[in-house]
Amino acid sequence: MEKESTKIHQILSMKGGLGDESYAKNSKPQRAILSSSVPVLEQAVLDFCDTRLPHCITIADLGCSSGPNTLFAVTRITSLIHERFSQLGQAPPEFSIFLNDLPGNDFNAVFQTFLPAFKEKKWAENGSYISGVPGSFYGRLFPSNSLHFVHSGTSLHWLSQVPPELNDKSNPLINKGKIYISKTSPAAAIAAYQIQFQKDFFSFLMARSKEVVPGGRMVFTLNARRIADPTAEESCLTWDYLGQALQDLVLKGLMEEEKLDTYNVPYYEPYVEEIKTEIAKEGSFTLNCLEIIALPWDACNGGMKCDRATTAKNWVRVLKAINEPMVRSHFGAEVLDPFFQSLTGNHRS
Amino acid sequence: MEKESTKIHQILSMKGGLGDESYAKNSKPQRAILSSSVPVLEQAVLDFCDTRLPHCITIADLGCSSGPNTLFAVTRITSLIHERFSQLGQAPPEFSIFLNDLPGNDFNAVFQTFLPAFKEKKWAENGSYISGVPGSFYGRLFPSNSLHFVHSGTSLHWLSQVPPELNDKSNPLINKGKIYISKTSPAAAIAAYQIQFQKDFFSFLMARSKEVVPGGRMVFTLNARRIADPTAEESCLTWDYLGQALQDLVLKGLMEEEKLDTYNVPYYEPYVEEIKTEIAKEGSFTLNCLEIIALPWDACNGGMKCDRATTAKNWVRVLKAINEPMVRSHFGAEVLDPFFQSLTGNHRS
Repeated sequence: MEKESTKIHQILSMKGGLGDESYAKNSKPQRAILSSSVPVLEQAVLDFCDTRLPHCITIADLGCSSGPNTLFAVTRITSLIHERFSQLGQAPPEFSIFLNDLPGNDFNAVFQTFLPAFKEKKWAENGSYISGVPGSFYGRLFPSNSLHFVHSGTSLHWLSQVPPELNDKSNPLINKGKIYISKTSPAAAIAAYQIQFQKDFFSFLMARSKEVVPGGRMVFTLNARRIADPTAEESCLTWDYLGQALQDLVLKGLMEEEKLDTYNVPYYEPYVEEIKTEIAKEGSFTLNCLEIIALPWDACNGGMKCDRATTAKNWVRVLKAINEPMVRSHFGAEVLDPFFQSLTGNHRS
Repeated sequence: MEKESTKIHQILSMKGGLGDESYAKNSKPQRAILSSSVPVLEQAVLDFCDTRLPHCITIADLGCSSGPNTLFAVTRITSLIHERFSQLGQAPPEFSIFLNDLPGNDFNAVFQTFLPAFKEKKWAENGSYISGVPGSFYGRLFPSNSLHFVHSGTSLHWLSQVPPELNDKSNPLINKGKIYISKTSPAAAIAAYQIQFQKDFFSFLMARSKEVVPGGRMVFTLNARRIADPTAEESCLTWDYLGQALQDLVLKGLMEEEKLDTYNVPYYEPYVEEIKTEIAKEGSFTLNCLEIIALPWDACNGGMKCDRATTAKNWVRVLKAINEPMVRSHFGAEVLDPFFQSLTGNHRS
């Protein structure tokens, strides 16, 4: 288990760089979620400013990735705090900003490409200090009592590892032919995912409870379910498509069946109640606000009007930017082109 | 001036990656300097522990680069503090560690390749939190009063920019044919370098004076002169060789003369007294210890016994890892091979 977990830390990352297929260029749905979460984020910032006005405010963005979304929340948070301090007649605060993601994240691109625009903002020019923190947010990342404000955008649905029951080769392959929970998944596979999420999310909260100062705030968005059934289409359909595209490659003889049977994604969309349960169980945080954001079906188009075929193509690009590093690592680079071609075909049909 | 300065921030970096020609693979002389500075470093750590034992100790390494040297000082500092706390019957401290270099530094390699070994040290497994800080150490990098211990190894001889007098095309080219101070450099060129160093080093001290807590410590090594004459061979000879190799390319018609005339390195080896003067002028730090480390002529061999030809070849590799990004940026990639071939020839003759 430990070894697999280390492996995931190295493999799980969005596609780096700035190319046409990079996450940086294909992260519009994530941007739509971030934009929709702004009112909740701003309310949390204002609530924080009502209770504390430290001279240096420490902010962490967990799972920042590398792209135009990386500094989205941090920009909103610092801008609003700066404005609030000014309204209250306070001297501008200093900001110590930590951008966290797994060590495989393209921090070079963050530092060279996306940071300069932030540093040009008038409130950030002086007194904002930014660093990159490589590591899993399911463990400790920061010293005790050091954070005032924590944000995590569309990241907490990524687990620390594939549930170990699912890729233990000595056991029967309980999620055969599937890569995530599916209508045909046995109860044991579903339970394995649920338990992994519970463990991980609890660990996340526990680590943060040590790091966040009393009175500190945390805002996060993650992919989740509005209905209790974990096999509901709203959380499984995309993975069914991806699994089907991989099945196609097996049928065409381009991939061994066993390769597919041992592939499962380190991902889970919890039911809203599961989130609440872990927060209550861990006990360090009070849930002030929980809102459901329904992503429009064409969020991959970034606000542009597109026909169905283009929309499907854009979704495939988004899925590719997310899945490519994992698929490459498990199946090998030669599978990438036929896999994503097959996926486009399935979407079209 | 401002624009040129921004440019330097993007260009000046050691050669990244892990290849045979990378800085990571060709930084043995820098390692020799770091090793020789350990007694001074350790004394400063012990002095610090005599006056303060905060629960979380904040350490910054400025100009950390990317390679096996990146965590050398941080490893020594944290190990010694950990040991000292234990001797004094104190609970182990937490460490907040900041690795700084210019944004062009290969932070991805630091995070993916060099950090894991550090995190495995027994005193670092729990309670050491590491981040990368992109930016120039000639400006502010950290919040006010936030650092306990600062280290900078073999970095402060790199200036924030080429002295503007030397690459202002509207003025006569005052350091024609040379790329650094040389026996034939006019007084104005030498003064331009001296003034740039004074400005930069003063800025460095002033930024740190805001960031380091009262009682905090700073240890740095930099290339410097033991004698007052700025044209002395001990600091100019290497640059003369590099300049000569570029001259060869001009003579061979591989490069325009004007390209060479407008190339000067953002580097300066100060006389020991110049360092003392700026420290006294800035006034926030007391100089407790100043030691001169004489680098052995074969430090590029990393302790191996080698003949003269191999030693020369190894030095060229070291110089290449340092100079390649700057040479590539100014002269273009096509110049790299003939330039370094020419340099090997000069060394041999």
